[in-house]
Amino acid sequence: MTIRILAIDPGSTITGYGLVDFTGKQTRYVDSGCIRLGKEAMPIRLMMIHQGIQELIAHFKPREFAIEQIFMHANPNSALKLGQARGVAIAVAAIHGLPIGEYAPKAIKNAIVGTGGASKEQVQYMVKTVLGLTGNIQADAGDALAIALTHAHHLQTSLAHKKSGRLELWNQY
Amino acid sequence: MTIRILAIDPGSTITGYGLVDFTGKQTRYVDSGCIRLGKEAMPIRLMMIHQGIQELIAHFKPREFAIEQIFMHANPNSALKLGQARGVAIAVAAIHGLPIGEYAPKAIKNAIVGTGGASKEQVQYMVKTVLGLTGNIQADAGDALAIALTHAHHLQTSLAHKKSGRLELWNQY
Repeated sequence: MTIRILAIDPGSTITGYGLVDFTGKQTRYVDSGCIRLGKEAMPIRLMMIHQGIQELIAHFKPREFAIEQIFMHANPNSALKLGQARGVAIAVAAIHGLPIGEYAPKAIKNAIVGTGGASKEQVQYMVKTVLGLTGNIQADAGDALAIALTHAHHLQTSLAHKKSGRLELWNQY
Repeated sequence: MTIRILAIDPGSTITGYGLVDFTGKQTRYVDSGCIRLGKEAMPIRLMMIHQGIQELIAHFKPREFAIEQIFMHANPNSALKLGQARGVAIAVAAIHGLPIGEYAPKAIKNAIVGTGGASKEQVQYMVKTVLGLTGNIQADAGDALAIALTHAHHLQTSLAHKKSGRLELWNQY
């Protein structure tokens, strides 16, 4: 059994993505990168996120989708922009029937580093170590990989506790 | 020349839509209504908005798209939710190559009632009067029709001032 996970770290300037294969025991790196939205008009950026994720799904055929949970952004205008990018990513995943896992930042840090208070650098370092990556990895791609690994971790825990590995479409952790 | 305009009033519970035909002089009512998202999980709601707008575009074949401009929502959490719904609506319009007009609430009130300080009731009343509608109209559908009428008003002004009626993909007023 191999479950391919696509994770997205949406942003209105750069949207990171990460793909891993979870075998039930191991997690293997598949691909990562980012969709650079540049200074295009906002509808173009949202279209680029939509098309980019559709292409990733068509090419890599993931079976599960994961995204970071967002809380109470300090600035309503930033929250609106981030919400727009995030809404597009989630809608595309839902249209393709992918079960969606949503993880709070602390849950991601906890799954990757073992403590919810870990720094961004610690998370990026552990992502590279766990996946056996050398060299630098773009920060948004690294964040997306951390989300994918967290989802794999959750699947492992679920599989250990349940006979069925089936997830609901919408899980919040 | 008839330009069919689809306007969307996105919300995370109810998303209103309105369609009008602009002939260069007159604006005629085509259809309006709302996509009720109920208490479904959020990805399902976003998928419903996505599919609903795609169906409206496939069925009514609008040539232009309009949406309300959002400023600084007081609550970041509401801004995030609204942003998610709004992002999906704009992405679907952009994917279908529709030029997008975005109008500030004051610009809508001004175009419909003649004053930026008009009440919601005045806007709804004028929408019904201008389009010759009798009976009650659902509030979100009425808001979407107001946005569509504002876009028609803008097209009329643009056509009066320019030889080309072509709009950029993204206009903010």
